[in-house]
Amino acid sequence: MNQPLVGVIMGSTSDWDTMQEACAILEKLKIPYEKKVVSAHRTPDLMFEYAEKAEERGLEVIIAGAGGAAHLPGMVASKTALPVIGVPVKSSTLNGLDSLLSIVQMPGGVPVATVAIGKAGAINAGLLAAQILGNKYPEIRDCFMAHREAVKQKVLEAELPL
Amino acid sequence: MNQPLVGVIMGSTSDWDTMQEACAILEKLKIPYEKKVVSAHRTPDLMFEYAEKAEERGLEVIIAGAGGAAHLPGMVASKTALPVIGVPVKSSTLNGLDSLLSIVQMPGGVPVATVAIGKAGAINAGLLAAQILGNKYPEIRDCFMAHREAVKQKVLEAELPL
Amino acid sequence: MNQPLVGVIMGSTSDWDTMQEACAILEKLKIPYEKKVVSAHRTPDLMFEYAEKAEERGLEVIIAGAGGAAHLPGMVASKTALPVIGVPVKSSTLNGLDSLLSIVQMPGGVPVATVAIGKAGAINAGLLAAQILGNKYPEIRDCFMAHREAVKQKVLEAELPL
Amino acid sequence: MNQPLVGVIMGSTSDWDTMQEACAILEKLKIPYEKKVVSAHRTPDLMFEYAEKAEERGLEVIIAGAGGAAHLPGMVASKTALPVIGVPVKSSTLNGLDSLLSIVQMPGGVPVATVAIGKAGAINAGLLAAQILGNKYPEIRDCFMAHREAVKQKVLEAELPL
Amino acid sequence: MNQPLVGVIMGSTSDWDTMQEACAILEKLKIPYEKKVVSAHRTPDLMFEYAEKAEERGLEVIIAGAGGAAHLPGMVASKTALPVIGVPVKSSTLNGLDSLLSIVQMPGGVPVATVAIGKAGAINAGLLAAQILGNKYPEIRDCFMAHREAVKQKVLEAELPL
Amino acid sequence: MNQPLVGVIMGSTSDWDTMQEACAILEKLKIPYEKKVVSAHRTPDLMFEYAEKAEERGLEVIIAGAGGAAHLPGMVASKTALPVIGVPVKSSTLNGLDSLLSIVQMPGGVPVATVAIGKAGAINAGLLAAQILGNKYPEIRDCFMAHREAVKQKVLEAELPL
Amino acid sequence: MNQPLVGVIMGSTSDWDTMQEACAILEKLKIPYEKKVVSAHRTPDLMFEYAEKAEERGLEVIIAGAGGAAHLPGMVASKTALPVIGVPVKSSTLNGLDSLLSIVQMPGGVPVATVAIGKAGAINAGLLAAQILGNKYPEIRDCFMAHREAVKQKVLEAELPL
Amino acid sequence: MNQPLVGVIMGSTSDWDTMQEACAILEKLKIPYEKKVVSAHRTPDLMFEYAEKAEERGLEVIIAGAGGAAHLPGMVASKTALPVIGVPVKSSTLNGLDSLLSIVQMPGGVPVATVAIGKAGAINAGLLAAQILGNKYPEIRDCFMAHREAVKQKVLEAELPL
Repeated sequence: MNQPLVGVIMGSTSDWDTMQEACAILEKLKIPYEKKVVSAHRTPDLMFEYAEKAEERGLEVIIAGAGGAAHLPGMVASKTALPVIGVPVKSSTLNGLDSLLSIVQMPGGVPVATVAIGKAGAINAGLLAAQILGNKYPEIRDCFMAHREAVKQKVLEAELPL
Repeated sequence: MNQPLVGVIMGSTSDWDTMQEACAILEKLKIPYEKKVVSAHRTPDLMFEYAEKAEERGLEVIIAGAGGAAHLPGMVASKTALPVIGVPVKSSTLNGLDSLLSIVQMPGGVPVATVAIGKAGAINAGLLAAQILGNKYPEIRDCFMAHREAVKQKVLEAELPL
Repeated sequence: MNQPLVGVIMGSTSDWDTMQEACAILEKLKIPYEKKVVSAHRTPDLMFEYAEKAEERGLEVIIAGAGGAAHLPGMVASKTALPVIGVPVKSSTLNGLDSLLSIVQMPGGVPVATVAIGKAGAINAGLLAAQILGNKYPEIRDCFMAHREAVKQKVLEAELPL
Repeated sequence: MNQPLVGVIMGSTSDWDTMQEACAILEKLKIPYEKKVVSAHRTPDLMFEYAEKAEERGLEVIIAGAGGAAHLPGMVASKTALPVIGVPVKSSTLNGLDSLLSIVQMPGGVPVATVAIGKAGAINAGLLAAQILGNKYPEIRDCFMAHREAVKQKVLEAELPL
Repeated sequence: MNQPLVGVIMGSTSDWDTMQEACAILEKLKIPYEKKVVSAHRTPDLMFEYAEKAEERGLEVIIAGAGGAAHLPGMVASKTALPVIGVPVKSSTLNGLDSLLSIVQMPGGVPVATVAIGKAGAINAGLLAAQILGNKYPEIRDCFMAHREAVKQKVLEAELPL
Repeated sequence: MNQPLVGVIMGSTSDWDTMQEACAILEKLKIPYEKKVVSAHRTPDLMFEYAEKAEERGLEVIIAGAGGAAHLPGMVASKTALPVIGVPVKSSTLNGLDSLLSIVQMPGGVPVATVAIGKAGAINAGLLAAQILGNKYPEIRDCFMAHREAVKQKVLEAELPL
Repeated sequence: MNQPLVGVIMGSTSDWDTMQEACAILEKLKIPYEKKVVSAHRTPDLMFEYAEKAEERGLEVIIAGAGGAAHLPGMVASKTALPVIGVPVKSSTLNGLDSLLSIVQMPGGVPVATVAIGKAGAINAGLLAAQILGNKYPEIRDCFMAHREAVKQKVLEAELPL
Repeated sequence: MNQPLVGVIMGSTSDWDTMQEACAILEKLKIPYEKKVVSAHRTPDLMFEYAEKAEERGLEVIIAGAGGAAHLPGMVASKTALPVIGVPVKSSTLNGLDSLLSIVQMPGGVPVATVAIGKAGAINAGLLAAQILGNKYPEIRDCFMAHREAVKQKVLEAELPL
């Protein structure tokens, strides 16, 4: 199981701080993935090529993170039939509200599965990919369930200061 | 193929005007689904039961629509391993910004695949369900691709007034 | 008077920095309370059990703090007849506007008594609990009045730099 | 039981359309109440007198609705030890976001139990008053529980169009 | 002078109501233009082709209108060296705030000259195109100045009711 | 000319950092003033007394600064015929947007002359007081004009780095 | 007393619906005024001339209403020592939030006395002008006080439906 | 080619930190420019003179940066036929949302080509000026294309940590 099933892309190396959380979850759940900087605005042709070939290259889910006028997730979604998960990266001026609206408010016809702004969203992008894949790959579903159980145990054992 | 694969739930009958768009897409793509009013706040036990049994009942994706302090998608997601798609219904006071933030800003650990506010979001919820299922069911993928092509043709043939 | 009257719960240990202000007020007003981490999304069953048993366990008011898509106060309110006070914890991305809207915009039928975002809100959650209990317990009302008088004196004695 | 337990006040007759929902709930739950126009800005002395005498006149909860720069709930709260529930009335320009922030963002020391913007909030203000009073008056608690059960049944019986 | 200098494109026929204002100004200023529906999400290849060939086809300015997650102006800008003017179309849910942020918050490297939300913006898109072209074509500059003078006269002659 | 003409009040000593800018301007323009902590919520009676007696005590303008649910300026305005200038203090959670809306959105009948959020607003509150008083006191008008001229000179002499 | 003391200006005839409320109050309080359309952007020279000559023409207060990128109040304020009251006119797209921020967020040095968005703000602009003038003209102060008393009586006599 | 083609102006020396990015791009693209502090509110006459004489002095594009109630770009645009690019400088209180709305929401008749808030916007202002000038000056167009290619290469060569 070495063929990447998930492609994690982001608009800039500065998004890595956020998007590494998605990669960390995918690793924890043993889901093979690849990662790459693909900019909607600075490398539009690369973006289209990436989206167009994703399916034939064996990817089954794409996770795309971007900030500000965040067009990467929506444009990739317009060029592939694969489910695309969008991560709004927190922007320096408007705290990611611009990123969120640019990603989630897609017109009818081209969905992007949008998650929360920032690192929590990146974590959840990894988990959502696992849920999507889990329907087909029982071993991914099992890893997802084990992770969820661990998260739950951590809360149950949480201690507040006296 | 009569077993529902998608469960479409909503917090109130007043959400039907929005959520029927999701159902219309599922019908167009020939994806078997069920629909039901399940309120997070007024029928919390029903909601938990619905979420808990969804997988064993054969559902593979849940679409949940709600408005205002929209807790339905996130709470269902906390009780099932299935992917949950959240549709922020436009609220009468804050235009659905409250619905959107209540659905999308989930903490790390429990994702909700959030789509746009209102009818465009409901349409896309149906399409996203098709994309998720299409990975496993080639005939759903084919229907999705045919629909996308039809949407594209409609734009290509659009005429503006002289 | 050792039976806890107020249950202070929060979605994560990271909410403690905010929620300790509620506890500090309850201690100052000599109102017995308990505190616990209960996550709506990561421990949904624990949350339901907590809410369902709160009244029979002798609690008379619940204070629930959460951030982001903050579902804890509203979901607890759906499972108990006790008054629930919601504290929107300041979130790292949207400054707690998401927390506020997720808590306050409850649909008709299930109220949450919402207070300000952050520490001021946590303080006021403690005081509001005292006001609610004060109607039944004269000694709590007396402590509340003494605290209010002290706060007033502090303002009256405030000195500005020359 | 004819002595009003709840005082429902509002800044202007134009708020009645919203605030009548609170009164309707109080009537349904058989909670004696009084209602009155009291404007923070146009009748400040009346407001102070109302707040100061509320407790000795036998009121146990105050519900205050106001819109825009909505100061009525917070100012009444500053002059009474009774719990004050604030209803943000939807404003014509900013949809009640101004009303909400003016009511909920109280400084530490003087809480206002804030509910949702508009009619849903007014309904919940009545229910929250019932929850607060229910701790002392078992018959109010019973009425509250019966109402909640009825609301739940209505959802359980809801039918969506075929 | 029949070769179109300005290309007016929009994501959907529903944007025509707004974008016709841009066309009306271009006609008034005698600037040859073409208009077309080009959707970033539903016809991504057409969009790229349009942008790539715009310059060689003789266009010197592009005006692009779109609403919601409005990616059209920014994506066209990524594929052409021509100046691109973006018109945020008023959206049904968030009043065009989403359209505005999706268009204006472009990352460093790919500018979009953004104008106001809705019809005022479309008018100004036409005028801005005239200003850009006026630097090279004196007759367009003259038409622009005549129009500005006429607008000024209209204000100077405005009468308020007695 | 030692009788204070301007009363500078604020809801808390923590507002002093902002409000000292107003005092500094008044001193620079040689306008006699007094300053005091007066809290709308914690010392409501003091606030009413201050507002009621302001005019007979010789004050001609009141500057009131407050943050969050900022009721001080509006409530003082409801109790005096003097012009009241409101300074929205930047709040820790919502950056002063709550302060601004709580101060500026006054209902018809009771104006508050609102200035910008934070220190720029406090400076302008002092200058606006000078403009109001300048109509009656020529020497204040002269000081105001001299200050404005100095500000202008400072801009004219500004140098940017090479 | 026929010399206008207040100049009421607005950016467009479409602002008259709002600004007539200011004029109606000035008439009711017997304050002589003039009214005029002056556009910051379409008649900038007229605006500067109006502002520059306002004082020597005998005006003592200026009320300026504008919507959207509302520059009229601030620019007039930059060219006169008279106090300028800014009325944010409700805009068609952003409900006047743009108008409000464009008017109120003036930099330190040039204040605009900002009132509420829309008609309530226009009413209060008239009243604030009366308060400013009342300091110098006792008869205006008397009219202001009589009006305030009438407003108060109207509230005191308000009746709610049974 | 030493005659400045672009005038870069800003409301205050504190805007230099942002606006230097525009100058850096102009230098990189070898476009002659001048830079100057011109304040709409503190030096209104200088602003008008600058705008009025810009064209005859040989400027072909103006870049204007300002924050808060940012009137500089719009007012300059009202006084010149040259295209004006507005850069919303990030403000200390509202993160530049006020700057953005004050610049972009211009009424029909007077466009400002608005770019993103802050440094990304300043960079893009320089690039947009190059695109506008490039239509007339082929050597500027060539520099623009070379810069765009370099930006693209940088993304293509970006490496993410292993």
